[in-house]
Amino acid sequence: MNQDTNSKTISNAVIRRLPRYFRYLRELIRNDITRISSKELSEKMNVTASQIRQDLNCFGGFGQQGYGYNVTNLYGKISTILGTDKGYSAVIVGIGNLGKALANNPLFEKRGVKIIGLFDTSPEVIGNDVAGLKVLDYSEIEKFLSENKADIAVLTVPKNKGKEVAEKLAQCGIRGFWNFSNMELSLDEYNVKIENIHLGDTLMTLCYEISKLDEENEAQK
Amino acid sequence: MNQDTNSKTISNAVIRRLPRYFRYLRELIRNDITRISSKELSEKMNVTASQIRQDLNCFGGFGQQGYGYNVTNLYGKISTILGTDKGYSAVIVGIGNLGKALANNPLFEKRGVKIIGLFDTSPEVIGNDVAGLKVLDYSEIEKFLSENKADIAVLTVPKNKGKEVAEKLAQCGIRGFWNFSNMELSLDEYNVKIENIHLGDTLMTLCYEISKLDEENEAQK
Repeated sequence: MNQDTNSKTISNAVIRRLPRYFRYLRELIRNDITRISSKELSEKMNVTASQIRQDLNCFGGFGQQGYGYNVTNLYGKISTILGTDKGYSAVIVGIGNLGKALANNPLFEKRGVKIIGLFDTSPEVIGNDVAGLKVLDYSEIEKFLSENKADIAVLTVPKNKGKEVAEKLAQCGIRGFWNFSNMELSLDEYNVKIENIHLGDTLMTLCYEISKLDEENEAQK
Repeated sequence: MNQDTNSKTISNAVIRRLPRYFRYLRELIRNDITRISSKELSEKMNVTASQIRQDLNCFGGFGQQGYGYNVTNLYGKISTILGTDKGYSAVIVGIGNLGKALANNPLFEKRGVKIIGLFDTSPEVIGNDVAGLKVLDYSEIEKFLSENKADIAVLTVPKNKGKEVAEKLAQCGIRGFWNFSNMELSLDEYNVKIENIHLGDTLMTLCYEISKLDEENEAQK
């Protein structure tokens, strides 16, 4: 109970930074580094050391003065907080290019999420083998989800289908939506969580940064 | 000069929000909505109206009291700030599943970025037609870039190749890197801009949110 209350007080901003810690720590483990100071981690991650201490203190402070952080412990705790040990499973709806790329991406496995079903509406796609699974007919998804528990739906369906598909899946018990269908999904009526992904946003930021860079270079001439 | 100094003061946080304004405004234009109040925009975007007024005031305040914002004007100005009218061009390096998905994605065209070259090292991929372009041999990329000006490189190469490829391309004049190769790219020696994309981070955040949701539901039982 106490731990529960404790973890609820973690701010959204900290939570958003945790996957980065997760990635850096995994890299350290891969390189056989067993402990690290907040200063070293700070240099690697380009975040201030005090920010790191503050962030990690939210979970009860894993660090020891003069010793630093035990990398394996810290990685384990962050993994647990992020739910990678929950054994979540996912279905992908829409097996076009992006759906296929995601199905084949090791990112799911690395984060402990198992893909258990792929769905599409196109006769040319249904029945194909993708990432070791046979693509199923979307019209069978209700039946599938009544027989197989899935926690997450990855949506790579056309924009105008996003809401309709998501509502159906929420009724089938899906609790998390990883939405690539390029629309802002909201399902206020359902008790679900949604991450809307807009890949293009970071491309635009990059274009802005290049144009600033060019302006600066121009001004220095 | 004045405008230059002016635009330099726009904070990074505001810049990161601009693509969202861009998307919402495009949606409004598509639905023939010509003006909107900060209050209405705020409800649509789930941001406070005062935040919106503050953000948009950074660019000289396009709004008019009691009238709201002229959607087309605002869209045009934000597009300009974000550099969508600069006519940037891009190459994609790594035409695996993700590279193919990106090459076929309308997000480039929508943001005024033209894909002019696709590159891979695999003999099975070189020569294939993808999104109307023939995939070229990566060994020819220097020659290609000396003959064709590209501003952006989209990297979907394996993690351990990211740095090497990026350095080569920076030497060939690429100024912006949209990096999907799942490593934190930094090129401090070069005058370039980088957006490191880690798709998995948002999947982890979603897993965290689902686990919190389950905890809450459990506690209410």
